[in-house]
Amino acid sequence: MEALTQLSYALDTFYFLVSGALVMWMAAGFAMLEAGLVRAKNTAEILTKNVALFAIACIMFMLMGYNIMYPGDAASSWWPGISFLLGADNTVEAVVAGGEDAPYYSTMADFFFQVVFVATAMSIVSGAVAERMKLWSFLVFAVFMTGLIYPIQGYWKWGGGFLDAAGFQDFAGSGVVHLCGAAAALAGVILLGARKGKYGPNGEVRAIPGANMPLATLGMFILWLGWFGFNGGSELKISDVSEANSVAAVFVNTNMAAAGGVVAALLMARLIFGKADLTMALNGALAGLVAITAEPLAPSALWATGVGVIGGMLVVLAIITLDKLKIDDPVGAISVHGVVGMWGLLAVPFSNTDATFAAQLTGLTVIFAWTFTASFIVWLVLKMTMGIRVSEEEEYEGCDIGECGLEAYPEFTGSRGSAI
Amino acid sequence: MEALTQLSYALDTFYFLVSGALVMWMAAGFAMLEAGLVRAKNTAEILTKNVALFAIACIMFMLMGYNIMYPGDAASSWWPGISFLLGADNTVEAVVAGGEDAPYYSTMADFFFQVVFVATAMSIVSGAVAERMKLWSFLVFAVFMTGLIYPIQGYWKWGGGFLDAAGFQDFAGSGVVHLCGAAAALAGVILLGARKGKYGPNGEVRAIPGANMPLATLGMFILWLGWFGFNGGSELKISDVSEANSVAAVFVNTNMAAAGGVVAALLMARLIFGKADLTMALNGALAGLVAITAEPLAPSALWATGVGVIGGMLVVLAIITLDKLKIDDPVGAISVHGVVGMWGLLAVPFSNTDATFAAQLTGLTVIFAWTFTASFIVWLVLKMTMGIRVSEEEEYEGCDIGECGLEAYPEFTGSRGSAI
Amino acid sequence: MEALTQLSYALDTFYFLVSGALVMWMAAGFAMLEAGLVRAKNTAEILTKNVALFAIACIMFMLMGYNIMYPGDAASSWWPGISFLLGADNTVEAVVAGGEDAPYYSTMADFFFQVVFVATAMSIVSGAVAERMKLWSFLVFAVFMTGLIYPIQGYWKWGGGFLDAAGFQDFAGSGVVHLCGAAAALAGVILLGARKGKYGPNGEVRAIPGANMPLATLGMFILWLGWFGFNGGSELKISDVSEANSVAAVFVNTNMAAAGGVVAALLMARLIFGKADLTMALNGALAGLVAITAEPLAPSALWATGVGVIGGMLVVLAIITLDKLKIDDPVGAISVHGVVGMWGLLAVPFSNTDATFAAQLTGLTVIFAWTFTASFIVWLVLKMTMGIRVSEEEEYEGCDIGECGLEAYPEFTGSRGSAI
Repeated sequence: MEALTQLSYALDTFYFLVSGALVMWMAAGFAMLEAGLVRAKNTAEILTKNVALFAIACIMFMLMGYNIMYPGDAASSWWPGISFLLGADNTVEAVVAGGEDAPYYSTMADFFFQVVFVATAMSIVSGAVAERMKLWSFLVFAVFMTGLIYPIQGYWKWGGGFLDAAGFQDFAGSGVVHLCGAAAALAGVILLGARKGKYGPNGEVRAIPGANMPLATLGMFILWLGWFGFNGGSELKISDVSEANSVAAVFVNTNMAAAGGVVAALLMARLIFGKADLTMALNGALAGLVAITAEPLAPSALWATGVGVIGGMLVVLAIITLDKLKIDDPVGAISVHGVVGMWGLLAVPFSNTDATFAAQLTGLTVIFAWTFTASFIVWLVLKMTMGIRVSEEEEYEGCDIGECGLEAYPEFTGSRGSAI
Repeated sequence: MEALTQLSYALDTFYFLVSGALVMWMAAGFAMLEAGLVRAKNTAEILTKNVALFAIACIMFMLMGYNIMYPGDAASSWWPGISFLLGADNTVEAVVAGGEDAPYYSTMADFFFQVVFVATAMSIVSGAVAERMKLWSFLVFAVFMTGLIYPIQGYWKWGGGFLDAAGFQDFAGSGVVHLCGAAAALAGVILLGARKGKYGPNGEVRAIPGANMPLATLGMFILWLGWFGFNGGSELKISDVSEANSVAAVFVNTNMAAAGGVVAALLMARLIFGKADLTMALNGALAGLVAITAEPLAPSALWATGVGVIGGMLVVLAIITLDKLKIDDPVGAISVHGVVGMWGLLAVPFSNTDATFAAQLTGLTVIFAWTFTASFIVWLVLKMTMGIRVSEEEEYEGCDIGECGLEAYPEFTGSRGSAI
Repeated sequence: MEALTQLSYALDTFYFLVSGALVMWMAAGFAMLEAGLVRAKNTAEILTKNVALFAIACIMFMLMGYNIMYPGDAASSWWPGISFLLGADNTVEAVVAGGEDAPYYSTMADFFFQVVFVATAMSIVSGAVAERMKLWSFLVFAVFMTGLIYPIQGYWKWGGGFLDAAGFQDFAGSGVVHLCGAAAALAGVILLGARKGKYGPNGEVRAIPGANMPLATLGMFILWLGWFGFNGGSELKISDVSEANSVAAVFVNTNMAAAGGVVAALLMARLIFGKADLTMALNGALAGLVAITAEPLAPSALWATGVGVIGGMLVVLAIITLDKLKIDDPVGAISVHGVVGMWGLLAVPFSNTDATFAAQLTGLTVIFAWTFTASFIVWLVLKMTMGIRVSEEEEYEGCDIGECGLEAYPEFTGSRGSAI
């Protein structure tokens, strides 16, 4: 029996590690998606941001974020307290002799899984502020976001804080991860302003096409794949029949919602623009994925498809609406993760009888209000100190030369081909 | 013992889900491979097709395809009957009390694994009809292919229909998936005709180079990786010594066949063209993979390499031959998946003593005849109604602008750089 | 109990196969990284090299390398002897009746895991000799490297040879894989000379920018992901609490070291060049990963970060220094894998009390001396026979046309856009 318990612990740990590796891979997905959707002259800079933010997220979460989000001994249901560094892993004794409450997977595997989540939340921000934000200000924001802002609201739900006690349901983070990232992004975008030339003198919206569609498509596929780890791993356990069935259902529903999102967004684009707009199809897939994230277990495959369909329709409308409001989000991140994240939270009660609209609205409001406010303050302080926007000249020339001292595609864009 | 059975079920389910995730990743591989091998002006359109066909495949297979392919209660060994939507997963009781015939993995995990296979078959088609087929006609075809044509022949073998009863062997689908996809593609290509400019007035063949070789290479690597799920998962079970050894042997043989295919195709290209043609090396890898798919378990690693070597030689000759026959296949999909798929089926009896050439030929003929005929009819109806070919003007300008309203690389190709 | 042993064997085998698949994926990572960091005109050629070397590595390791590295019956602690082809896998009897020394995972899974390691070592070479080495000479070198040079030194440590007996510690191969690859690369680069135009007439170093930064970034992310298999799989077992905790710790430390490397290299680049140089951030991540590879288990997460930080600082300094020494390495492979590989080996005693600096220095010296000398001889013989450097005209025009007969980006680089 002891050997069986150990083997079961090993399987659950391995399942966690594989899930975590898939979520880590989403960092590449965001990098490719965003690099594909910006102009060539800002590509190296957004790649640098994505690489660096992942590194910062890992370091800050190891130093303090993980302890804040999952405190051993929380000060209150609002304030988790602060402590530092990771502790030791579970002992064999604790596992085999612990009974019902014994740990059933490695704490280090849990940290690995959680740390890639915080990086995901932060990745959402980089896309929305692309093509005009200063690199180093962005990275300083990442320190605060991943070390404090995200972990605190994460504690409120997943760490057992007051939102969890209030019955708020968020299986894998439509709210805790996606809405949180979008709220931080929105605060930044408002303080930053739109890109030069995005909105004409008479209020017209000008499309600024992304430089590399295959790259954006690759990014979307990476995210779709990674989401199996994101949602599938959030079941937290796989080692008996009932848990294994649950993980499998989560995989199926995650996949169906993405599929529904693609079809819905493509048809919406066809109806509204008259064309099968690829970028809308990509955002439709991501919208389906974000929408199902709050509850990928309870729905049937058909209902999961429907959740994705509504997400896919919503994202097209949201992108159009935000543009009308002159909220300039080059990759549509606020629409995908924010607007559709809200839809995901509100869709939970339709399939999960433990959820209520009141609790979902509470969670949604609290996460948005906290993240938006805290982020706004940090962005504002940065704006008043380091500055957050590149100079007009640098914006015209491109952030790549100004911030990174190199070009993403020196031979393709004509003006500055390799001299050799 | 019951806990052990449950743990074993969990491991097999997890193995299925990981395998399925790897096969899902092949959708990205096909998208990148095809996007790299077409011209810049048709890139966004083929990406859109690949994203949308995956979504359609998932939805159609969930709605009816899975039930057709694996009917609970088939009408006959030819006709599986039609039913809709997915049922419930296995109960714990059925698993632990079922004895020899008890289910040993989640039905939902099985669906997930199977649904990514049907998408693979459909992905094969998109490459062959690239650069001149109408987007929406293609997607309508995808509905029929993934909802009916593929599942019916899949039933004949994997669902326990008459081909299975006849002793036809096809471990992971050289026939059921690859030849099936290629036969549907061939029917489409014949009705569609060649791209403008591909064949000169005096019958000469003109090379139309793909726009992005790194992308095509990435696609090939993604497919190579995904194939470990494709073939490795098709063992269906991993939870004892003998099954675990089998899965490991399948991984090794799959890898060796791909390696053999690369070397053979590269040497063939060097001999015939005098150059180490990268696109042939890529198709050689895929040919090795397709060839071993019908029987990746029985061969030794050396023989698996040999199966790949012959596949790699065949694919180079097939691509040259199809071009002489003026069957215009921009990415070589019919050669890779069709011609080499046939070789894979016929190679089975050399290593698997349960297989006979007669049964293999029967399976090959039935799959090809059914898929080609059924697809031809659907394509023909589409041609007579919606039309399947873009206008000459659109073909000249590129499908991206016409079908998707955007360009894949607006800043790289010179003529229409970003205005901003 | 027997069923439990079998299930445990299945889990360890599956863990090996998943780890191996992740390492195989690193082949794509190297291909993308190197393709992104060279000029457009040499891109198809380096892709061809990467695809072909992976195939050659698999075939040579199956034919003889695996037997040399892990001989059943070694001739001596220096000379393993030579034998050919893979044997049979473990029998069920051997597994269940074997007691303490019974095999606990499939031999075929072990081969699969090992074969992707040798390909990694060989991939390191291709980057350093990029943009001027003849394709076929390179591939002949790959035959010797993967069939003999790598396996022999691999035997000395992991096969139980004299370096292992001497107490040399190298968990996953900072020395056996990375330093080995870098030493072979260095020998090649010295005999090959620098690219035309890299060093000016007055000794100045000219930057030759890579053509595709998103591709290089994608390559880095692929390598980061693959490294979880590389290091995580090198624990070799996961099926009890203690082993599962160890694998989880390896994942965490691998991730933290990469994160530390990014931040350190980015800050170093900012200090030295005044810019957030993306290529340095990428090399910083890889440096962190290489550095932790010799000992990813013993350190705390904080110390692992520190190992990566030092690796990230070292790699920037090493790249600058090698350029001053006129050792032209287009992708920085010798710095990343060689210089930082040495740091990784020497860092082991700080966290692992079983290691000594004397033993680490011995291992480092022996691996470098053997690989450099043996490789130098092979490169020299190739230079005197086939030649190793392309003609000056071909170097100017690009290796793609000369070696592969095609271009990587025919429509993007302007001079030779598609005629159609």
